[in-house]
Amino acid sequence: MSRTVRLDPSDNVETAVEAIAAGAIAAGTTAREPIPAGHKIATRAIARGEPIRKYAQIIGYAAEDIPAGSHLHTHNVEFRNTDVAYEFGTDLRPPKPPARQDSFMGYRRENGSVGTRNYIAIVTSVNCSATAARRIADAFGPEELAAYPNVDGVVAFVHGTGCGMGGDGEGFEALQRVMWGYARHPNHAGVLMVGLGCEMNQIDWLLEAYGLKQGPLFQTMNIQNVAGLRRTVEMGIEKVKAMLPLANAARRTPCPASELKVALQCGGSDAWSGITANPALGYACDLLAAQGGTGVLAETPEIYGAEHLLTRRARDEATGQRLIGLIRWWEDYTARNRGSMDNNPSPGNKKGGLTTILEKSLGAAAKGGTTPLNGVYRYAEPVTARGFTFMDSPGYDPASVTGQIAGGCTLVCFTTGRGSAFGSKPAPTIKVATNTALFERMSEDMDINAGSILSEGVSVEEKGREIYEMFLSVASGAQSKSEAQGLGDYEFVPWQIGAVM
Amino acid sequence: MSRTVRLDPSDNVETAVEAIAAGAIAAGTTAREPIPAGHKIATRAIARGEPIRKYAQIIGYAAEDIPAGSHLHTHNVEFRNTDVAYEFGTDLRPPKPPARQDSFMGYRRENGSVGTRNYIAIVTSVNCSATAARRIADAFGPEELAAYPNVDGVVAFVHGTGCGMGGDGEGFEALQRVMWGYARHPNHAGVLMVGLGCEMNQIDWLLEAYGLKQGPLFQTMNIQNVAGLRRTVEMGIEKVKAMLPLANAARRTPCPASELKVALQCGGSDAWSGITANPALGYACDLLAAQGGTGVLAETPEIYGAEHLLTRRARDEATGQRLIGLIRWWEDYTARNRGSMDNNPSPGNKKGGLTTILEKSLGAAAKGGTTPLNGVYRYAEPVTARGFTFMDSPGYDPASVTGQIAGGCTLVCFTTGRGSAFGSKPAPTIKVATNTALFERMSEDMDINAGSILSEGVSVEEKGREIYEMFLSVASGAQSKSEAQGLGDYEFVPWQIGAVM
Ligand SMILES: [Ca+2]
Ligand SMILES: [Ca+2]
Ligand SMILES: [Ca+2]
Ligand SMILES: [Ca+2]
Ligand SMILES: [Ca+2]
Repeated sequence: MSRTVRLDPSDNVETAVEAIAAGAIAAGTTAREPIPAGHKIATRAIARGEPIRKYAQIIGYAAEDIPAGSHLHTHNVEFRNTDVAYEFGTDLRPPKPPARQDSFMGYRRENGSVGTRNYIAIVTSVNCSATAARRIADAFGPEELAAYPNVDGVVAFVHGTGCGMGGDGEGFEALQRVMWGYARHPNHAGVLMVGLGCEMNQIDWLLEAYGLKQGPLFQTMNIQNVAGLRRTVEMGIEKVKAMLPLANAARRTPCPASELKVALQCGGSDAWSGITANPALGYACDLLAAQGGTGVLAETPEIYGAEHLLTRRARDEATGQRLIGLIRWWEDYTARNRGSMDNNPSPGNKKGGLTTILEKSLGAAAKGGTTPLNGVYRYAEPVTARGFTFMDSPGYDPASVTGQIAGGCTLVCFTTGRGSAFGSKPAPTIKVATNTALFERMSEDMDINAGSILSEGVSVEEKGREIYEMFLSVASGAQSKSEAQGLGDYEFVPWQIGAVM
Repeated sequence: MSRTVRLDPSDNVETAVEAIAAGAIAAGTTAREPIPAGHKIATRAIARGEPIRKYAQIIGYAAEDIPAGSHLHTHNVEFRNTDVAYEFGTDLRPPKPPARQDSFMGYRRENGSVGTRNYIAIVTSVNCSATAARRIADAFGPEELAAYPNVDGVVAFVHGTGCGMGGDGEGFEALQRVMWGYARHPNHAGVLMVGLGCEMNQIDWLLEAYGLKQGPLFQTMNIQNVAGLRRTVEMGIEKVKAMLPLANAARRTPCPASELKVALQCGGSDAWSGITANPALGYACDLLAAQGGTGVLAETPEIYGAEHLLTRRARDEATGQRLIGLIRWWEDYTARNRGSMDNNPSPGNKKGGLTTILEKSLGAAAKGGTTPLNGVYRYAEPVTARGFTFMDSPGYDPASVTGQIAGGCTLVCFTTGRGSAFGSKPAPTIKVATNTALFERMSEDMDINAGSILSEGVSVEEKGREIYEMFLSVASGAQSKSEAQGLGDYEFVPWQIGAVM
């Protein structure tokens, strides 16, 4: 009998753990055709128009009469926008008080925030200062930093936007929030902002809007004022050199786990994401919330279709309504841009067995665990609530993580089924494989194997605790695999909203 | 008497060459208030609602009654969308046949195209392979390339997009055209494409759509297939090593100037752009067109308001209608994104004295000279016509130049008034300063001083010939200033159209 997974007794589908041959006995029926691993088999006959249920939830509708044992996928399952009656706070499950107060070794900053790393950042306002910023950062290799062992590095945050855009509106505001978020990030001991001078995203406006003042560990410069690339680079290097001894004076001290802010992320999802890695990460998020720490779910298009489950978890109606507001904004945003909210499963997702955005959404939302939703934020907005929270962002990994880090996340936990070589700075990324084959194939990139939930019968709770323990150790300075490989210099991608002009 | 410039006898404004004090005699009147250099003074009283004329063209309307000698700027000049009756081919001025056939030393490729440089390119499909691509390129420094003196370098083209996007439509198609344009660029001797594997912008789809075949000098790889970052980088380095001896076999040979394709670009414009550097570049474009070479104007929002002058130069109605089609698309694009076509003058532009998009448009279009408009192209589309052509793009420098290079431009000529540290690969950028003060201040970044048209009375034609001669020498291998500084590794920015999901 071929191995399958049923997620709820009321489901009419099961998921193939291994490829099922045509004619094989599986899911209490006989496979009518080959079912690839991770794909769905109909456990009974499903009439045209009937809902397809997984996680006890509707993931789509039968596009035709489907006999038992059929392969269920895009060819015979259709997506429909449905009207849902939203409920607020009707499913509040506060975390269990923890047995002990956990802690990690963090950098406590003057303003009370707590970092997990100690970088100096070169933040750019526009692509026109990208090369200047890279050159400044490149001047600080292992040799130049040898005398400053407490400094984790000098990083350039370089991007493709910052001009040819409106000087107000959501796109402009989102970019300014990203810059501000990186400027005040607790993983940054010092910040040098570098611009061109005539860009739309003016550094001076940012300083004014956010009341930022220059000081020994916060400096700004524009190429046009400094009169050229070479001199900008030279002056920038001098400014960073002056910051190094001050940054090096920072020391790790014991800090409660309540000071941790973890970005919850997935990318290159497969059919196992929602069955292994995401529920395990959700359990880790529950443990963190119990400590008073913060988990930040994001990727609004990826929870589309599951938002009614999240509003039931909202601590109050205002918080739930903010989430619905984001959903409505996205429907308008994609319509304006001649897309639709069903665009999301990528070719890789579909190959892995995910059929509709609703199916993917339920699996993606599993990363957020079960505790109350205590805050909903715009992209890159400072996250101030504790416990489980949500931030608006695209699903696209680098753009989403950039917003989460700008919001104050000091760690990233990233689940992947198809495989990803993602890494991030200044907050390091922990990568969780959804299946054992991937973990073994990309062993140099994956930190944790949630595939053992299927291959070795490890429980979701055990795996969740393993992830949570890694939060504490990586927050204390242990290197994740992507961090040890030095990733994170090219993955800073502020979400670009609106027209490029 | 303060120095001013009048551009046409019918104008009612002049432009201050130096700052004019209140009460000073200037432009045949008395300045009522201080006029900054580059800003406009009213040469006579202008009634509310009356047109403001510069270049004999309407650049805006008086928002109030304006006495002679007033400072004319955003506070008293307003922008209006106007209906224009388009004419086609009514202003055809073919270039004068040249006295001699000019030539340069270029790389003639097997398919007949001619390059000005000889690079090996690492082209990425998605941000998820950015670090892998950088690591591969970084392995080829001066030491590793010493044995291959004819190879100009190994360059990674890395960007922030490629997934979280629709799998069809204009945004997807534009990105695939960019990739295809870089893959077949005549300045590339060899190309390695690197992807993740599950991204929306699939390398395999691209190969299929464009009929590309792998070979010794064209290779592709995906991180997910190769099983991790380190192995991808190692394998990529091996692939590039195998290309080096083949790429090094290329030799420069004499090629006619008709094989040159020059991207015409401006960024950080000031009030001098349209008076010095742009008309001089326009004259260089006329000289190039006379040789049968190609100039590619772009930056559609920046010629908005001057499109009726370009349609008169269109070689036929179909060509002119394509331009109008682009204009209509932009009106819709900006409206959908809650912007307007008057967003364009940046804070820097306004500080420099440019009041409306119409004024800027006339100055920007001057880069295209006076010869017939022989072709109109979509963003990143292969430019096949000779002479003066137009390509749709945003004004934003890196996004616009990326499209021009994808379209086949092998040189870029970039005018700037406020100053820019822009540079590009694989096509090098020549930078032209619009004013002498900028040229002197950023002497290490500027190749040519068009400010001498004002400060030393050099003619536009003399300056245009100087620019044209530099086209030929840089095309033959002489380094421009930005090229000598190594710029171009971080300025590859495919235009992102549509929603990021
Ligand atoms: Ca995801
Ligand atoms: Ca993601
Ligand atoms: Ca290199
Ligand atoms: Ca421009
Ligand atoms: Ca430009």
